[in-house]
Parts: sequence; C-alpha cells; structure tokens
Amino acid sequence: MFGVTILGNNSALPAFDRHPTSQVVTIGNTILLIDCGEGTQMQLSRYRIKRSKINHIFISHLHGDHYFGLIGLLTSMGLLGREQPLHLYAPAALKQIIDLQLAVANVKLPYELLFHSLNKEEIIVDTPGFSVTCFNTIHRIECRGFFIKEKRKPRKINKDVIANYNIPTHYFDALKEGKDFIQDDGTIVPNNELTIEAPQPKSYAFCADTIYDEELPGKVNNADLLYHETTYLADHEEKAVARFHSTTIQAATIAHKAFAKKLLIGHFSSKYEKVDCFLEETAAVFNNAQLAIEGVTYLV
Amino acid sequence: MFGVTILGNNSALPAFDRHPTSQVVTIGNTILLIDCGEGTQMQLSRYRIKRSKINHIFISHLHGDHYFGLIGLLTSMGLLGREQPLHLYAPAALKQIIDLQLAVANVKLPYELLFHSLNKEEIIVDTPGFSVTCFNTIHRIECRGFFIKEKRKPRKINKDVIANYNIPTHYFDALKEGKDFIQDDGTIVPNNELTIEAPQPKSYAFCADTIYDEELPGKVNNADLLYHETTYLADHEEKAVARFHSTTIQAATIAHKAFAKKLLIGHFSSKYEKVDCFLEETAAVFNNAQLAIEGVTYLV
Repeated sequence: MFGVTILGNNSALPAFDRHPTSQVVTIGNTILLIDCGEGTQMQLSRYRIKRSKINHIFISHLHGDHYFGLIGLLTSMGLLGREQPLHLYAPAALKQIIDLQLAVANVKLPYELLFHSLNKEEIIVDTPGFSVTCFNTIHRIECRGFFIKEKRKPRKINKDVIANYNIPTHYFDALKEGKDFIQDDGTIVPNNELTIEAPQPKSYAFCADTIYDEELPGKVNNADLLYHETTYLADHEEKAVARFHSTTIQAATIAHKAFAKKLLIGHFSSKYEKVDCFLEETAAVFNNAQLAIEGVTYLV
Repeated sequence: MFGVTILGNNSALPAFDRHPTSQVVTIGNTILLIDCGEGTQMQLSRYRIKRSKINHIFISHLHGDHYFGLIGLLTSMGLLGREQPLHLYAPAALKQIIDLQLAVANVKLPYELLFHSLNKEEIIVDTPGFSVTCFNTIHRIECRGFFIKEKRKPRKINKDVIANYNIPTHYFDALKEGKDFIQDDGTIVPNNELTIEAPQPKSYAFCADTIYDEELPGKVNNADLLYHETTYLADHEEKAVARFHSTTIQAATIAHKAFAKKLLIGHFSSKYEKVDCFLEETAAVFNNAQLAIEGVTYLV
C-alpha cells in the first residue's frame, strides 16, 4: 500500500471542524507523518493510526499550523513508553523550541529523538523501499516540500514457467535482477519468460505551503500523486500572492505542467465553510483532482 | 453569572475524546481562561465561547497538558485581528517559549500581550468585581492554583420603601454603602429598612495539579466551589504520590477540610475509560461533589 491519509486540511485558523495541516503517508509497512498541526495526536487517535508505528516525522516549515501539535505528540509518545528512536526532519530552529519545552517541564523523552536539520535540496531518507527528497518552496518563511519515491521492486519469479526448467535456487536472485538463464546445452531462456516485471514504482509529492512557483513542476516532475495547497479560490489571486499562498487554478496549472497523474488539494482558508467549489475550479485546468478530506486515504 | 465551563478534563495523554486541562471561568461580563492544553481553541469553538471575549489567561504550570494549546490560541487571536490587550499570568519561562515561537514564524501579534510572571502567593488580579489570588501547589515542577473571589456588591435600594421618605438622590450611594438616613426632624431610618443586602459574594478555587497537601485547605478556605484534581482512584494512591497527583479520597478530604461548599473533580488518568467511579469514591468522604465534564458549566 502507498497512500496518503489526511489528518488536517485547513489553513492557519481551525474552523468548521477542519484541522491544521497533517498527513500520514503509508508506504509498505512504514508510516511517515508530514506536518503536525495542533490536534494531530487526537486526529491520529480518531482515525486509529498507531502513534507507535510512526518512525519518521517531516515538518515543512515553522508556521504554527504545521507544527504546534508536534510537542504534544512527542511527549505523548514518551508517556506511552516508546523506546524506538524517532527521526525528525525539520528546520533547525525547531530543535531549540523542543529542547526548551522539555527542559521547563523537566521531561526527558524515554526514546532517542534524532533531529535532522533541513538545509538544502537533497535526499534525506534512503531505504531499500523508498527515498524522500526535500525541495524548497517559496513561502513567507523558509519552507520545504517532500518528494517520496518508491524504488523499483525486483522482478517476480513466474513459478509456473520455471518448473519447466532445471534452475538451481541459488540463481533465483539473478533472475529477479533480470538476468537470462543459460541451460546446460547452451540455449538461452530469456528473463522475461521466467519472471514478471514488478509494478512501476510510484511517487508522492507534498508541496507544502507555496506561492505559485514556475520552478516547482521541475522539482516534482511526473509525480503519481501531487499535493498542492489551494488556500484560496481563483478570485482571491491577489490575496494569495500577498500571503505567499496559491489558488485553485494555480495548483491545477502546476499539476498540469508537472505531468502529475493525480492532484490532491487542501489547506483551505477558514473563510470558506464549504470546499466543493475548490474542486470545480481546479477541474477546469486539470481533470484528475481530489479534495483532501480529513480521515480519507488517497492511493498514490 | 459566576460559573466554570470545562473544556478539558483529562490528564496528560488525551484519550476517549477527553482533552487536556482547560477551563473557562465566567464572572459577570468577564471571561477568564485557566490553563490551555492542546486543542483548547477547538474546544472554545465547539462550545461557542468567543475567543475575543477572553482578556485574562492563567497558566498553572509548564507541563504540556496545561499549556501546549496556548500558542495556537494566541496566534489565532492575532489572525482574527484582535487589538484588545491580553493579560497572561504564567511561569516566567513561558514568555521565552512564546517569543521564540513567534520569532521563528516571523509573526508579530497585532495586540499587546501583557505577560505577568507568577512568582509568589499574592493577589494577581484586582478589579471592582473580583480578585484572583495565586497560591502554590506541590507538584513535580513549580505549579500554582488560582482562587477567584467575587467582591461584595453594594446594597440594593428598596424602591418601595424609600418612596415613603424624602431622600435626596445624591444620598443613594451612601445608602448602598450601608449608611443610615437621618431625617430633617432628626429621626434615624436604619439602613436595613431602606436597602436590601447584596447576595453573599462567592468564590472558586482551582487547585491545579497537586499531590495531597495538608496546607492546601488553609489556602482555599471556604471556597463555594473547589476544583481538585483526581488523577487516580483510591487504589492507586502510591502511584499518585510518586507522580505528585491525587486520588478521589484525597481530593474529597481536602474539600472537607477546606469547608468547601461543592467539589469539582477532574484531570482523570487516561487509564480510565469511564469516570463515574471517581464520583462514587469521592462521595464516601464529601457528599457534594461533581465530575468535571467537558462542555458543562458548573455554577459557583
């Protein structure tokens, strides 16, 4: 499974039971948390996502609606007796805030908090199954998005076919890597007869908070699922520019230029009680978009 | 109206849709906020309490479940365009945390935040209608409770009676203060014939987080409503002591010794899904107790 579960889809001011930004990305057996607005730990409970399964947290920037829930989550993990180390990727200043908040409470976390300062556009997580690259977005303060890419899995052995040949099991790894098999008589059995190609690896790009940025498509090219904020409807483009946010049309334009397969929109301003109209506007430019709705999981 | 509305009744770990500590005290036209755990601003919305009406916030101590929601509330007040100054009474270190969080976000609040460090047991708010005294409780870190006392209102002129006398209106203030009236012929009309006594002023004591403390009754003597934490049921007294918290029986004992008229109990541990049993235990020692339930207003 590679999917994104929305915990908060609202912009700065919580309203209409919509919460500040937070998303859970499930990739195989790994759960990543992106941003952690106030109330994220309650949203995790509400949607029955186990805090203990989260080993990586990414914070895009230090506006409160993207991180005020983090310290509560970190201390709750401690109260629950967590021992597993936790990786936190965030702007450097966050460490100072967390250290100060733990110090005044005289609390020492019972697990290791491994803090990784985000400094430049680079790969920040690299595992056998996936990688995470961070990239800069243009916002009022230093802000970063995250591009999560599955790695291609090995080819799968076609058990029905290999039964017809006398292939030693120690050769199976070579088959999975795409090697042909040479029989004792010298005849070659081509790999694609013996194995099945693994599914195409997929990718999810989280573009955080950003003004409309012509350089963004180049950074998140070909994402299977692209999350782009739409704080405002198209008629508020001026306000969006002034506040370093984006409109529906701008998000859809980025998705189109980035050759995204699907677009997910969120970070709705509290001035809007209903958000259906966001989708109507986006559809005019990019026809495969969805609203980020809290509690819903969107497959990548 | 003098009442206490519960926004959060749980201890450190939010659970079973119970929230960390926060209470709203309404006294006449004034709204005071005591403690501000994560999610308080959402709880204020849920129970339709206007953020704009809060001019005084009191933070008992710097464990996260009593203040992690504060920075979100303060910045939301800013986003809503607040201009009215806001008084914040809290341990000194909180100022450093708030300043740091505003600085990294490059945010300047559009209203004046008047920070008052809590240092000793003293009157911290004194208005014509009420006063607030802070007192120390015994907890793992520096912690304070708040004793809110109405002031006696002036006596009320009995209009039916004064019509029988020729009393100049400029003398009414003296009557309200309890002065007798001397008629032209020298006869005295006693004040209690002319005026009606104002209702007895009431008081609310919020005892924050505390271990069982024999000195506490002396500090909150005769409170009409006494809030005392009951993190644990009586069978967990040892755990309560170890963590500087209290049990049902201990809270009830304090209420009894303090001659409280009513007791309100809360700060329930997340280990308990149901909390009715807290009341059953308390009743064995003090028979006028109530559970602090979120969204409910308890009259002082």
